[in-house]
Amino acid sequence: MPTWTDTDRQFMLEALELAFQGCGLVSPNPMVGAVLVKNGRVVGRGYHRRFGSAHAEIEAIRDAGKNARGSTLYVTMEPCCFEGKTPACTNAVINAGIKRVVAAMLDPNPRVNGKGVKCLRRQGIEVAVGLLKQQAQRLNEAYVTFMKEHRPFVILKVASTLDGMIATEEGDSQWLTGERARATGQLLRLMADAILVGVNTVLKDNPRLTCRLNAEKKLLRVILDSNLRLPVQSRLFQEPGPVLVFTATRQEERIKRLERIGAQVIRVRQERKGRLNWQDILNELYHRQITSLLIEGGATVVSSALEAGVVDKAYFFQAPKILGPGRLFSIGLKPRTLRTALTLKDVRHIELGDDILTEGYVYRFS
Amino acid sequence: MPTWTDTDRQFMLEALELAFQGCGLVSPNPMVGAVLVKNGRVVGRGYHRRFGSAHAEIEAIRDAGKNARGSTLYVTMEPCCFEGKTPACTNAVINAGIKRVVAAMLDPNPRVNGKGVKCLRRQGIEVAVGLLKQQAQRLNEAYVTFMKEHRPFVILKVASTLDGMIATEEGDSQWLTGERARATGQLLRLMADAILVGVNTVLKDNPRLTCRLNAEKKLLRVILDSNLRLPVQSRLFQEPGPVLVFTATRQEERIKRLERIGAQVIRVRQERKGRLNWQDILNELYHRQITSLLIEGGATVVSSALEAGVVDKAYFFQAPKILGPGRLFSIGLKPRTLRTALTLKDVRHIELGDDILTEGYVYRFS
Repeated sequence: MPTWTDTDRQFMLEALELAFQGCGLVSPNPMVGAVLVKNGRVVGRGYHRRFGSAHAEIEAIRDAGKNARGSTLYVTMEPCCFEGKTPACTNAVINAGIKRVVAAMLDPNPRVNGKGVKCLRRQGIEVAVGLLKQQAQRLNEAYVTFMKEHRPFVILKVASTLDGMIATEEGDSQWLTGERARATGQLLRLMADAILVGVNTVLKDNPRLTCRLNAEKKLLRVILDSNLRLPVQSRLFQEPGPVLVFTATRQEERIKRLERIGAQVIRVRQERKGRLNWQDILNELYHRQITSLLIEGGATVVSSALEAGVVDKAYFFQAPKILGPGRLFSIGLKPRTLRTALTLKDVRHIELGDDILTEGYVYRFS
Repeated sequence: MPTWTDTDRQFMLEALELAFQGCGLVSPNPMVGAVLVKNGRVVGRGYHRRFGSAHAEIEAIRDAGKNARGSTLYVTMEPCCFEGKTPACTNAVINAGIKRVVAAMLDPNPRVNGKGVKCLRRQGIEVAVGLLKQQAQRLNEAYVTFMKEHRPFVILKVASTLDGMIATEEGDSQWLTGERARATGQLLRLMADAILVGVNTVLKDNPRLTCRLNAEKKLLRVILDSNLRLPVQSRLFQEPGPVLVFTATRQEERIKRLERIGAQVIRVRQERKGRLNWQDILNELYHRQITSLLIEGGATVVSSALEAGVVDKAYFFQAPKILGPGRLFSIGLKPRTLRTALTLKDVRHIELGDDILTEGYVYRFS
């Protein structure tokens, strides 16, 4: 076990902060940040800016210029050792004359996963792994899940009143939470590869399902629509970017109508009560390189995802309001006992004006 | 408008902290704290410890001894000017030779309400009022409401899951929230003069409704029980202290059965849907010198109080759990729109382990 100094930690923390700047644009790659340190000071910084562009190590080496020689590389994930869209990072590290590499974690991609470290060590470079490993793994929890479990990381977002209502009896939900909560909701969209809602939400709210934080952001929009009731006039078709519709129906007419306006329709299995099969949905998204899926509602979809046990992480935004009988987000769950209640782990609370965000991880059944 | 120095504020803050030490034991008196300051340092401290014992000013004067002469008194509420259980404080202040009095607020009791200040000024004592007034008024919000509006200050406490459930479908609610939330719940009981639940809660949970934080605490226990279904074997009758039962029934047999074990039964008007009339209840409690009433549930009583608009302040404890269909605390409310939703004002969030407390003031209809 290597022992780390406070200086080590400080440099890795900076690398993690750099990594996060690639948030939303690098998928299906991980976010990676790197700093080069020589004689106790940073001589180069880099991060993976967007999918297809240079990796963090390369950016940092370029930034350092000839100062890279003899320096230490702090990088949030083991350098890759194969040529993909860009050349292997290990070669660049070796050629730059870097003498020591500190990586927060191994790359869970089976094409790397320790091979990068081995390759560097063979060239006499000192390599240590594990500094701020937890933080690094959490930063890339979607990527890690995608690589290890061959499915997207599933995130649930619910905005409700204190009595769990996501809309009034008439379905009105605009706006339940305040400005800061809604801005944080946009950040969740930036972080995700795909966003999913049920057809009822489209029929009721007619949302665009876009991310307004970054014009470059590509967000796959996914609609669950067992009977293809999705109107072709929906606003989501007026925005650029693909729309994927999961259905159970075989009505060719309806399928063609949606395909004509550019939607992709995919048939999946149907469960009792008419719910679409989540494994089929997640499997399809996995094969489309979706590392993270943000489920935004409504009550039917939220309950169905929770009941199926496919949610990894949940964000509950709550406004300090009481609505009385309306649309309860958990209405579709089977009643539970206190012992079998769904319980969040690693809970964090974040105050957003008068609203509160409770976030945590959900115990998964599968 | 007097201008205050930081030193003034610091001394008054200390007086407010002293005042709070009387929490739970001084009612129907207000909590009051006092410090005596001479040559820039504190020479005496006091607070009203319990109903019937010496007032804060007297304690501080005793504590200061001969140092009281020529000192400044910082007191959280205007000194009283009439003899009640204890002699008038104004006389003691005058006799002690105090030369300046700084009070945070006037006493809203019509027997005082500025007369204390006047009396001191007539004796040539310099008096200033209003330093940290808001804090002082909030500290004694129950007393102020009681004095000005001739009714108890009504506090609502709800402990629920994120989806607003206070119990499972079977009525199981022990324990929904964690240890820190429950300890804070006990503090609310200490702060209140009376605690109120519906008969269903007694039938289901068989609670003691006592405050376990202080053996001296007197807490009037109030049960709403339209048809007098309250069992005489209930645990609440095994604990010392009075039990008040509000009912609508005239069945003499049932009334006598409860009176025989020491309960007091009071008949009030009944509303549509069988709910008891809140004005009658609050009026009766006012005449019994109850300055603050803590409503603890269950769903019928909570909804009824919110719907009637009688709640002043609400404390929502939420566990990071999702239960699905169970006992929703707002089930009895009439459906509302987002514009007419009950909304908390002056919201505060307090993290209690994994649970979150959202507290705030409710707009009152009456």
